[in-house]
Amino acid sequence: MKGYVFHGPGQSAWEEVPDPAVEDATDAIVRVDAVTVCGTDLHILKGDLPEVRPGTVLGHEAVGEVVEAGGDVRTVRPGDRVLVSCISACGRCRWCRTSMYGQCRGGGGWILGHLIDGTQAEYVRVPYADLSVHALPGALDGKDAVLLADIFPTSYEVGVLNGRVRPGDVVVVVGAGPIGLAAIATARLFAPERIVAVDLAAARLDAAHRLGADAVADAGESPEQLIADLTDGLGADVVIEAVGVPESFELCARTVRPGGHVANIGVHGRPATLHLEDLWSRNVTITTGLVDTYSTPLLLRMAAAGRLPTAQLVTHTFPLKQMEEAYDVFARAADTGALKVVLGEPQHDVVAVRPADGEDVGSHA
Amino acid sequence: MKGYVFHGPGQSAWEEVPDPAVEDATDAIVRVDAVTVCGTDLHILKGDLPEVRPGTVLGHEAVGEVVEAGGDVRTVRPGDRVLVSCISACGRCRWCRTSMYGQCRGGGGWILGHLIDGTQAEYVRVPYADLSVHALPGALDGKDAVLLADIFPTSYEVGVLNGRVRPGDVVVVVGAGPIGLAAIATARLFAPERIVAVDLAAARLDAAHRLGADAVADAGESPEQLIADLTDGLGADVVIEAVGVPESFELCARTVRPGGHVANIGVHGRPATLHLEDLWSRNVTITTGLVDTYSTPLLLRMAAAGRLPTAQLVTHTFPLKQMEEAYDVFARAADTGALKVVLGEPQHDVVAVRPADGEDVGSHA
Amino acid sequence: MKGYVFHGPGQSAWEEVPDPAVEDATDAIVRVDAVTVCGTDLHILKGDLPEVRPGTVLGHEAVGEVVEAGGDVRTVRPGDRVLVSCISACGRCRWCRTSMYGQCRGGGGWILGHLIDGTQAEYVRVPYADLSVHALPGALDGKDAVLLADIFPTSYEVGVLNGRVRPGDVVVVVGAGPIGLAAIATARLFAPERIVAVDLAAARLDAAHRLGADAVADAGESPEQLIADLTDGLGADVVIEAVGVPESFELCARTVRPGGHVANIGVHGRPATLHLEDLWSRNVTITTGLVDTYSTPLLLRMAAAGRLPTAQLVTHTFPLKQMEEAYDVFARAADTGALKVVLGEPQHDVVAVRPADGEDVGSHA
Amino acid sequence: MKGYVFHGPGQSAWEEVPDPAVEDATDAIVRVDAVTVCGTDLHILKGDLPEVRPGTVLGHEAVGEVVEAGGDVRTVRPGDRVLVSCISACGRCRWCRTSMYGQCRGGGGWILGHLIDGTQAEYVRVPYADLSVHALPGALDGKDAVLLADIFPTSYEVGVLNGRVRPGDVVVVVGAGPIGLAAIATARLFAPERIVAVDLAAARLDAAHRLGADAVADAGESPEQLIADLTDGLGADVVIEAVGVPESFELCARTVRPGGHVANIGVHGRPATLHLEDLWSRNVTITTGLVDTYSTPLLLRMAAAGRLPTAQLVTHTFPLKQMEEAYDVFARAADTGALKVVLGEPQHDVVAVRPADGEDVGSHA
Repeated sequence: MKGYVFHGPGQSAWEEVPDPAVEDATDAIVRVDAVTVCGTDLHILKGDLPEVRPGTVLGHEAVGEVVEAGGDVRTVRPGDRVLVSCISACGRCRWCRTSMYGQCRGGGGWILGHLIDGTQAEYVRVPYADLSVHALPGALDGKDAVLLADIFPTSYEVGVLNGRVRPGDVVVVVGAGPIGLAAIATARLFAPERIVAVDLAAARLDAAHRLGADAVADAGESPEQLIADLTDGLGADVVIEAVGVPESFELCARTVRPGGHVANIGVHGRPATLHLEDLWSRNVTITTGLVDTYSTPLLLRMAAAGRLPTAQLVTHTFPLKQMEEAYDVFARAADTGALKVVLGEPQHDVVAVRPADGEDVGSHA
Repeated sequence: MKGYVFHGPGQSAWEEVPDPAVEDATDAIVRVDAVTVCGTDLHILKGDLPEVRPGTVLGHEAVGEVVEAGGDVRTVRPGDRVLVSCISACGRCRWCRTSMYGQCRGGGGWILGHLIDGTQAEYVRVPYADLSVHALPGALDGKDAVLLADIFPTSYEVGVLNGRVRPGDVVVVVGAGPIGLAAIATARLFAPERIVAVDLAAARLDAAHRLGADAVADAGESPEQLIADLTDGLGADVVIEAVGVPESFELCARTVRPGGHVANIGVHGRPATLHLEDLWSRNVTITTGLVDTYSTPLLLRMAAAGRLPTAQLVTHTFPLKQMEEAYDVFARAADTGALKVVLGEPQHDVVAVRPADGEDVGSHA
Repeated sequence: MKGYVFHGPGQSAWEEVPDPAVEDATDAIVRVDAVTVCGTDLHILKGDLPEVRPGTVLGHEAVGEVVEAGGDVRTVRPGDRVLVSCISACGRCRWCRTSMYGQCRGGGGWILGHLIDGTQAEYVRVPYADLSVHALPGALDGKDAVLLADIFPTSYEVGVLNGRVRPGDVVVVVGAGPIGLAAIATARLFAPERIVAVDLAAARLDAAHRLGADAVADAGESPEQLIADLTDGLGADVVIEAVGVPESFELCARTVRPGGHVANIGVHGRPATLHLEDLWSRNVTITTGLVDTYSTPLLLRMAAAGRLPTAQLVTHTFPLKQMEEAYDVFARAADTGALKVVLGEPQHDVVAVRPADGEDVGSHA
Repeated sequence: MKGYVFHGPGQSAWEEVPDPAVEDATDAIVRVDAVTVCGTDLHILKGDLPEVRPGTVLGHEAVGEVVEAGGDVRTVRPGDRVLVSCISACGRCRWCRTSMYGQCRGGGGWILGHLIDGTQAEYVRVPYADLSVHALPGALDGKDAVLLADIFPTSYEVGVLNGRVRPGDVVVVVGAGPIGLAAIATARLFAPERIVAVDLAAARLDAAHRLGADAVADAGESPEQLIADLTDGLGADVVIEAVGVPESFELCARTVRPGGHVANIGVHGRPATLHLEDLWSRNVTITTGLVDTYSTPLLLRMAAAGRLPTAQLVTHTFPLKQMEEAYDVFARAADTGALKVVLGEPQHDVVAVRPADGEDVGSHA
């Protein structure tokens, strides 16, 4: 089959790789019908995650059909359409028993496209399939569903639920990329009074508006003032960090009200400064987290009921074999306006992609 | 009457001041029978809190008797023995309505010995008496009760409850001064499996042992290793910061397990480094807080039932008029072994102090 | 002034009564600009609440203007437009300190129109005004706001919050009178997957649809089956009782899923049968409650932002002096289609009532 | 091998049965070294649980050694000493994913000695071994550990945690049989101010005292008065039902304070009367539940650390082959003083039983 293989920093290709096969009785083999590219994949390509070995097929998000299942897989069977979650779960370790699947120490956690071959391929082997894939509700299009493999549960669990968004809250989301936009969309499930999006890019702030932000602020032009104006100078009830740089986290900590919550989603590479000389007396709660995907079944139901604006986040679609073009469009998001790019095979499923004709490398949905 | 007056950095005296009087219908005047000195008072003397105006009587913790009450005070009356809380509460503002009294914006919060005259005097005016003093259970000695004005609710609310200590937890308390020791004592109410105390001073670690720590670690000798050994390398369930310096906070963040809690109690003057590059994926919760004293009624019942080891924290007692000596003993804790010093009048109450004879400046209880 | 006075079972009149005056420094006198009638008022008239003494002015919900305030009232002053809450709160007792104002033992709780003269009058004395009235946001019409004196906080706190409604839930509301309808409206703040309303009256089920119920069931025609069909036979996540009869409560207990919540709002006069032989193993949580009104400030903000469909619940409006007609229309709701009736003075405020001409006793809004 | 077989109401015998064998790759076979009898077993013998088919080996609690494990068992292996939990868990269904193992719909739940052969035998097959047995800490004696198969997690989860026992609470436990006693023991982990035990039998109230009850009340002599006296007439913070009859549940509902919790543990066969006419306004929470055993790993650690008084609950020990005598002693608890009876083989493990000599049918430990 074909897969997108990492060959070390700066080197990767869509190329022939061996077909995956069931190795453990708890494995399933899934034919990939829709897949997407994550910001983390770009970090891997740059060499920021040295634990990823050259030769690994990338990708940790997919929708597809089970084509083979090990003898001990009980919840899905060949022919089932499934979501392949970014997190695999052994279901037996201390962490899985408390639904902290992201921390699984029994061989799961984030392994696909990281420690083992991933989803950016024609087929993928998913270990511990019972807890790592989810049967798709019939009504749900694969192109929409694939966003529930990672960014929607991440934004909902690590941003909205950790941040304890409640009706009537003022919620600030710093960073209006795909994760921040999904945080805006899922924060709305709790009827906050107002959601303020902060970003540097006007196009992303426009997208934030479309997804339900009530106000937007340019990160370069003192968003503190806007937030203060909207909150009688107190600060926001919940501030969600969806960028992953120290400056952004520090903005969050400056704009939260006494008694409020800062929920960090961003993947950070450097330490931030924590101004405890201001914060010590302010009853602030700061949370971090890797997604656990315990909310995925709920989000699938919500998406099937049309309650999640998944389609608005998909700006470009491609056939699988144009993986390299898709990476390029996604990597140059500032130029291309890409939010999420989705790849898939029109004959199988749900991604109504235009034929690849050499000119139309991708298209705004 | 006499009171201990701040006259600017490095200048203070036990001297004659005007008697306080009821100014608002919600005020009470309390005769001070027992009072203590807080680390924060030392900071005021050094000039670290510029908002404290010269001329202010210091002190925010006391036990005494109500001698006069304004017309709208309903819960106590003259003759009642009361605890004067470090936090006053208007009871009407947004914050008081959610029991966040420490953040009161209606004229309360930490005001005694800070923004208005405090308790280190023969008498003190307490605004909003209904929510700012607590009638003492009969069985409770004033010398013990005075520790419930600040350090016990602070340790319990900001350390133990914010940190969500649960049965079976491994709890680390960094800093074994009075606040840390009270955190150890109140953490025990939740039956943790093990409490580890970390400090630089051997005498404080001994005190930690007496108050219920199961293990102690010298902060200078890699407490990380001990904590790792006790937790299969995972880290502690709850880590409580009770020092107030960046190094101490950073130790807390390094030794908490995935999914664990860091509860900061310490009063910080400088920022700390938050290693988000490690923490982002570890599902950690960090809390800060000023005490709200919502737990004071509970703690008074627990103390009256003999469930809190308050007496073990009082190392020295003095008559009120030896305030300056008491400050000196408390300020030189490393030499004197002082944990908490309590001052009071033997004829009134509960502090069985030796007569002040010029030689016996204070005594280990 | 005029007021609506209870003279014993079956006897009441809109008649001349003494003007109220400030009695305690914490009282406020409010001119009533909008008032409503509650189902509980009908129970008082029938003699079901023997603690209500003849001579009492009825009513516990109002919007109006402060015309006088005692010397210790700090949060409102004459000229302020306010909501008079159905619950008064001393702010000092054990219960008020934990926001359980409905249980106040310091002289508050439900007292207006119950233990002291109430709001169905031209003026009302409100004890403990600081915690018992709420300044109105400017944007909020009095006719809408008056529904926040009782039914909205009751439905939200005792139904939706006690029931722990969460995104994706199936919520059943048994009883589609005003309280049940407000429960439907406020349950929607948490993005449930589906709200099912159950009632005997087709008109009320229509109203439920308009307020956001996704499905409705006739209580006489086996709503169990509909609920089972919608939940794969499991039962609902949350079931809210908004009637107050044993049969209704028992339906709730039969239709909740394992691990689900039954939140009772209804005022009951008789015991129900609790089928512990079925329920003991089903991990069910059942809650009861009198409203505490801690959510009123939030609900006022939500209403001012147009997020609560208050207007849809007001079917009839009258001038104050037609109190007797209003009671009649409300008492004959099955015939008149009344949900909430609101009375007020057009010259003062917000209730745009038609002139009373003897023919048009009330009108559908 | 030998096992204790149910042959229909009133008929049972310790007799030869086929050896169990691994049927699914997730099964383990455990050699039973210690087993106990539960009140539910007596109900089965009476015919109260018609779903138990004649021919079933009874028993759902055991400690033993894994002698064989299916190919997909990952957390234990032959030679491991394990606790066999009363609840089996597939780990994959909706309920298991939220730790509600007792409600498992994937083939687990309470199946041992109920729907399949159980633990009162020389060997037992345990399905879904990874989530249904727990490796024993080395320090823990099997006779003590066997109480963690059912009664300790049941009392802790369904009584203490569902009831939300907190420091300073007054906790009432109605019923001082083994479950009630374990509730007393585990309630103490949260430092309640006072635990009141209620029972009809003086011997059980004595046991309650030994296990930490601060006060005891004869159920026949108005325990309401004692509880009222201890709580200023308010009622208890938490009331735990550990009997399973309507009268006992109704006592719980009468003695809980406004805002308090009633946690039902008892297995009920008849409905109770719920006095909603009193309770509707009292902000009461009532919970029911089958044990989920999510707390078993924690309880094993606590027991290994000597924090649970398991030994005090074992009044009689027998060799396995005296199963019939053990049932008899347990069934006549009022005469024999039996709390828990434990059976086991001295050569294997931990149950130091006296030799069975025909005279000494059992002995107080």
